[in-house]
Amino acid sequence: MGEPPENFSMVWKGIYRSGFPARRNLPFLRTIGVRSVLCLCPEEYPDSSLAFFESNGIALIQHGMDGNKAPDDRTGAFMAPEIVARAIGVLLDESTHPVLIHCNQGKHRTGCLVGCLRKVQRWSSVATFEEYRRFAGAKARLVDLQFIELFDTATALQPPQRANS
Amino acid sequence: MGEPPENFSMVWKGIYRSGFPARRNLPFLRTIGVRSVLCLCPEEYPDSSLAFFESNGIALIQHGMDGNKAPDDRTGAFMAPEIVARAIGVLLDESTHPVLIHCNQGKHRTGCLVGCLRKVQRWSSVATFEEYRRFAGAKARLVDLQFIELFDTATALQPPQRANS
Repeated sequence: MGEPPENFSMVWKGIYRSGFPARRNLPFLRTIGVRSVLCLCPEEYPDSSLAFFESNGIALIQHGMDGNKAPDDRTGAFMAPEIVARAIGVLLDESTHPVLIHCNQGKHRTGCLVGCLRKVQRWSSVATFEEYRRFAGAKARLVDLQFIELFDTATALQPPQRANS
Repeated sequence: MGEPPENFSMVWKGIYRSGFPARRNLPFLRTIGVRSVLCLCPEEYPDSSLAFFESNGIALIQHGMDGNKAPDDRTGAFMAPEIVARAIGVLLDESTHPVLIHCNQGKHRTGCLVGCLRKVQRWSSVATFEEYRRFAGAKARLVDLQFIELFDTATALQPPQRANS
């Protein structure tokens, strides 16, 4: 039986989203033929999952960052738009497909990244925010919607900078 | 700018879902290349949409039915499993792809059909019900979950009956 990770959904052709895949979800990723996993968490990846990815030819791409925090949070952390722009570059590069985006819950960081992708796809704000809320539910954060609104899609459409240029 | 219909999402390769597409959403359906629309409402389709479909080569497939009603509802209506099975046949037939499933809100009838499709795809009940609730939100109906649980996937995997057989 297929057991998709929590908050799993298809985003677009070749692009999936979810919460952190548990060990019991790994066979499902194989059944849908995932070729890359784009992880938005900064923490080290579990060894058992790394071994599974390696033996199944799945590339792990980590663009780790903390989620947006409410203004009253001490850290006042805000996601880095340049990391989000690079992550969108990964999604737009079909050689990574099928690719699974995930963070911990599949709600906030993943929701922001997908929201910024919808801006690139020129979706209306209403539809973009509705989709964000569908996955975040009662945990929706206004700072996330602000992040999406402020995101400059031009930064995501630059050709990627090479390390040696 | 792309304005997807309410509750729009990708279900699987070549399969989309949404609420009833308003006139302002029709151009979006063209941008994603929809070839068929599977409507689960029994009412007549609006003429202006029919004209749009015809001029864009989009086939309208109607498997109209009423949604499931709670046991205390006077009508006690329950969706017809054989219509749902036929609708799944439409979804599994790739010649209809990309296909958009819709009812009125994209919550109940569409949610039941997608839930039954997930059973055919052998998803776990947890993931199937979570997905149903993601779209239905506060309007989730236990009778819909019961409908999905009782649905016999074998009926959906029969080759379609021809009219003259």
